[in-house]
Amino acid sequence: MPRVAILAGSKSDIPVLEPCLQTLSDLGIGHELHVMSAHRTPAKVQQFAASAADEGFEVIIAAAGMAAHLPGVIAAWTPLPVIGLPIGKPGMSGLDALLAIAQMPPGVPVACMAVNGAKNAALYAAAILALKHPTVSEALEVYRRKQAEG
Amino acid sequence: MPRVAILAGSKSDIPVLEPCLQTLSDLGIGHELHVMSAHRTPAKVQQFAASAADEGFEVIIAAAGMAAHLPGVIAAWTPLPVIGLPIGKPGMSGLDALLAIAQMPPGVPVACMAVNGAKNAALYAAAILALKHPTVSEALEVYRRKQAEG
Amino acid sequence: MPRVAILAGSKSDIPVLEPCLQTLSDLGIGHELHVMSAHRTPAKVQQFAASAADEGFEVIIAAAGMAAHLPGVIAAWTPLPVIGLPIGKPGMSGLDALLAIAQMPPGVPVACMAVNGAKNAALYAAAILALKHPTVSEALEVYRRKQAEG
Amino acid sequence: MPRVAILAGSKSDIPVLEPCLQTLSDLGIGHELHVMSAHRTPAKVQQFAASAADEGFEVIIAAAGMAAHLPGVIAAWTPLPVIGLPIGKPGMSGLDALLAIAQMPPGVPVACMAVNGAKNAALYAAAILALKHPTVSEALEVYRRKQAEG
Amino acid sequence: MPRVAILAGSKSDIPVLEPCLQTLSDLGIGHELHVMSAHRTPAKVQQFAASAADEGFEVIIAAAGMAAHLPGVIAAWTPLPVIGLPIGKPGMSGLDALLAIAQMPPGVPVACMAVNGAKNAALYAAAILALKHPTVSEALEVYRRKQAEG
Amino acid sequence: MPRVAILAGSKSDIPVLEPCLQTLSDLGIGHELHVMSAHRTPAKVQQFAASAADEGFEVIIAAAGMAAHLPGVIAAWTPLPVIGLPIGKPGMSGLDALLAIAQMPPGVPVACMAVNGAKNAALYAAAILALKHPTVSEALEVYRRKQAEG
Amino acid sequence: MPRVAILAGSKSDIPVLEPCLQTLSDLGIGHELHVMSAHRTPAKVQQFAASAADEGFEVIIAAAGMAAHLPGVIAAWTPLPVIGLPIGKPGMSGLDALLAIAQMPPGVPVACMAVNGAKNAALYAAAILALKHPTVSEALEVYRRKQAEG
Amino acid sequence: MPRVAILAGSKSDIPVLEPCLQTLSDLGIGHELHVMSAHRTPAKVQQFAASAADEGFEVIIAAAGMAAHLPGVIAAWTPLPVIGLPIGKPGMSGLDALLAIAQMPPGVPVACMAVNGAKNAALYAAAILALKHPTVSEALEVYRRKQAEG
Repeated sequence: MPRVAILAGSKSDIPVLEPCLQTLSDLGIGHELHVMSAHRTPAKVQQFAASAADEGFEVIIAAAGMAAHLPGVIAAWTPLPVIGLPIGKPGMSGLDALLAIAQMPPGVPVACMAVNGAKNAALYAAAILALKHPTVSEALEVYRRKQAEG
Repeated sequence: MPRVAILAGSKSDIPVLEPCLQTLSDLGIGHELHVMSAHRTPAKVQQFAASAADEGFEVIIAAAGMAAHLPGVIAAWTPLPVIGLPIGKPGMSGLDALLAIAQMPPGVPVACMAVNGAKNAALYAAAILALKHPTVSEALEVYRRKQAEG
Repeated sequence: MPRVAILAGSKSDIPVLEPCLQTLSDLGIGHELHVMSAHRTPAKVQQFAASAADEGFEVIIAAAGMAAHLPGVIAAWTPLPVIGLPIGKPGMSGLDALLAIAQMPPGVPVACMAVNGAKNAALYAAAILALKHPTVSEALEVYRRKQAEG
Repeated sequence: MPRVAILAGSKSDIPVLEPCLQTLSDLGIGHELHVMSAHRTPAKVQQFAASAADEGFEVIIAAAGMAAHLPGVIAAWTPLPVIGLPIGKPGMSGLDALLAIAQMPPGVPVACMAVNGAKNAALYAAAILALKHPTVSEALEVYRRKQAEG
Repeated sequence: MPRVAILAGSKSDIPVLEPCLQTLSDLGIGHELHVMSAHRTPAKVQQFAASAADEGFEVIIAAAGMAAHLPGVIAAWTPLPVIGLPIGKPGMSGLDALLAIAQMPPGVPVACMAVNGAKNAALYAAAILALKHPTVSEALEVYRRKQAEG
Repeated sequence: MPRVAILAGSKSDIPVLEPCLQTLSDLGIGHELHVMSAHRTPAKVQQFAASAADEGFEVIIAAAGMAAHLPGVIAAWTPLPVIGLPIGKPGMSGLDALLAIAQMPPGVPVACMAVNGAKNAALYAAAILALKHPTVSEALEVYRRKQAEG
Repeated sequence: MPRVAILAGSKSDIPVLEPCLQTLSDLGIGHELHVMSAHRTPAKVQQFAASAADEGFEVIIAAAGMAAHLPGVIAAWTPLPVIGLPIGKPGMSGLDALLAIAQMPPGVPVACMAVNGAKNAALYAAAILALKHPTVSEALEVYRRKQAEG
Repeated sequence: MPRVAILAGSKSDIPVLEPCLQTLSDLGIGHELHVMSAHRTPAKVQQFAASAADEGFEVIIAAAGMAAHLPGVIAAWTPLPVIGLPIGKPGMSGLDALLAIAQMPPGVPVACMAVNGAKNAALYAAAILALKHPTVSEALEVYRRKQAEG
């Protein structure tokens, strides 16, 4: 079964991630949620990112608010595709996190989703995995057909 | 050989895409460049998107400026992962295109890159393809190692 | 009787559209409300837009939030005048939708209203229809006179 | 022949309007260009707007930069549909003009185009006129078909 | 006694103006509050502005939200100093009104205050009137001294 | 003769002020230009502001870019009306200076002009002075009439 | 014991400063809180800043909202390192204060923290003091280790 | 002699740093310039940051554009005070880098300077060092006095 790692920059981001977890479950994609901060726990972040491919993860979703370095730092340490989810905090409406994730410099990309767009982070992970895993491809096809119908 | 479709919303976007084409070539990833507009040639866009998977493409990179609907419209018609590249035009510095690509509503995701971040669009396509294609995985590993050294 | 189509990108946009529906009714302009998404139901959008003129609609009002592609996609498939209504969602205050509607590229225009400016969408539709339909012209004149008085 | 009034808030805006004039000519739509300022020549603006319908104009395109009041002031004095064209001046990239035109309060709408989107202002005027004038409808259809082909 | 006219673009702006009215009263400056809209009641606005100097007003405070044309339109019709007060409405946080008031084009200035900065509008009117009216000068001096103490 | 003080936050702002100086001259208003920085020369700023009224100045125009504290600091030390002119520097298009001048907190107002709106700073000073000085009032009336004609 | 001065631009900013006071206490750093306004009480601000070094303060934290001149004015009068804390007020989400603090012109720097980032203001003060005071260095090391663990 | 490390996220940032190097030299502060990228060379960044204090550096200045993670990543690995310098790149005017540096989350602060404010980065480093090093304190005092005079 394909596996996705979901990383939250802080515990307070977990409720926003709920639709991401639910959608991955609906699509039959294995996932693990970890809380780690690019700033407060940099060693944990580095170790996780550097070993993620060997641990069998195929895609990493990283959610963070404000300066939102987590997705970019993860991407610096792993060749896996990283999906960045900007979290909107009071005070800047998430524009800060959006820019900190989307505006990655040349050489190390991150796929930026909408502010608080947790469901789409799961669906994009699924679209990536569907290239390789027929079960995900089928589940995603069903999901999109239902969505178009209803 | 894995194949990537690169779509430009207008001919004037092609020079910005140069580093994307070059990087894909450097990584040994097949690619085709097409010009089509979500607004001026919607039928062409729909047909391309709806048949892209059957045509053997595995990832689509779509570049557009201003209201930048091209990536989102492509994503509506294909299950393939779509990478959206916002193009900065005089008058709004690309913030319009960035928001029009990143802020996709729930259900149909697009991976937003930095404004004019053409090289990263290629590298993200490579990261996706590397999950399935060992040759891409190896080429990407070499690329990143050289980058870290130089 | 002139007829206006009102399209909402999602069910959650309907309450914002209330003043639009009410104002069209007050002016004696026929209207129909449909929910369809440029991303989740692209075929429905295309079919509706491509046949709208033949169905007897004369103006289309399309409301959407976030990346807000609905008005632009409709405009790509119909020669009818399209009025785009940006919906403000938490997280970006509607600036994302405003730019995604106003900043249409050359060749396919959309008339952008204010964020959540549902009443004005109806009044602009009326101003267009008034050129051709004397009853709308008279109703609009009365409406504006009352507005100036009260 | 249908007639469109094109108003520029200052002489320096005329070069930006060139594609608008050209497109109206291409579509066989009569037009007149006038320079007037909502601030420096308010009486001229009021008189023009208040008599525009009687003078036989059917649509008004008003272009202005910075605080960009011209379209809104025109719309206050005429029931005709007004198309507002924000002009980008150095110092704010046109965002000021875009907001000053798009964010009209309830009761008096203006159709906002993209910053410097002069061609689209003409095309939107044509879309409005096409409802009533078969010659414009045919010219617009040809224009869009050519655009889709080329 | 010096007199200030206070104009609100809509009735809903009156609560925001409360500190303005109170401060003018505290400083012994006569004032009148009128509601008028640059868009819905343009004739009323023009007449008021054109006769304000003859009516004995010396300063005009005009408050408006969204596209916020009221201060600029007033300034177009009177040589009196106009103080513009941007009102923050949900959806754009007042940045739209701020730009629509501050970014006046060359030839007709408006003095822009902070978003919802009603007290400062009164104090700026007082600073202007203090040049001519010793009683206002004295009252303002006392006000500022108390403010510095408390 | 009425006198206006014009303060530039740095020597590099002087060219932007040229239309301000010229317009004051055209209107027969005496003026003096001084360069002083709220940050680099705070004592000079304080002394100038605190004695400006006694020196016979009636209005102060203060121009500054970036964090643009000069107008606000001047206003803190003088009861005279202060006109703030935001200067656009590369890097932020003047939005930083605009907000730093317009968003003054309650108690000490500054009249914010447009970014680089030097001519309007002079005209607003004239509008203030015209309340007291008939010669300025007449000169301003002539200026506005010519402007409306030309 | 090292001492930090904490300045609030208005009483309403004190609740936002709570985490700053708490963190300084946790780290064993002496601190004093004073309320003073760069605009309403400029003499108090100047006197405080000019004598802060002699009074034994080593770092100054200054918090302010809106135009947020307090940190910059303090920095103009003291050679001590000044940490500026932008306070978010309704109406502009703190972007105004952030720019007014970060965009200081060449010659007089201020260290800008995040909007409402009170805890970080304390931690940055600690990082500065740790260079000189071993007790602060040790306390900060413990704090960061606990943070990384928990 | 006190030593400052200056880190540039890319070689293209070095010209912007010139005033920083010059000012540190003028003040007699030792400094070393290194180029390293938080994304392309994360191991180099981590090693540098983790050993910077032991290497005898007392302050770190880190300059980066776009998503600008370098200062925050450095700050995650060192207790030394980090000064972040946002670099303005075409396409977003440096607002992206400014937010990515200023909006650091609670726990790990960075001192944000103005966009391209290289001289101030040096002066802030000097202000920090002056607390401990009398020679820097004296040099800074002379610098500020000259600045105030000239």
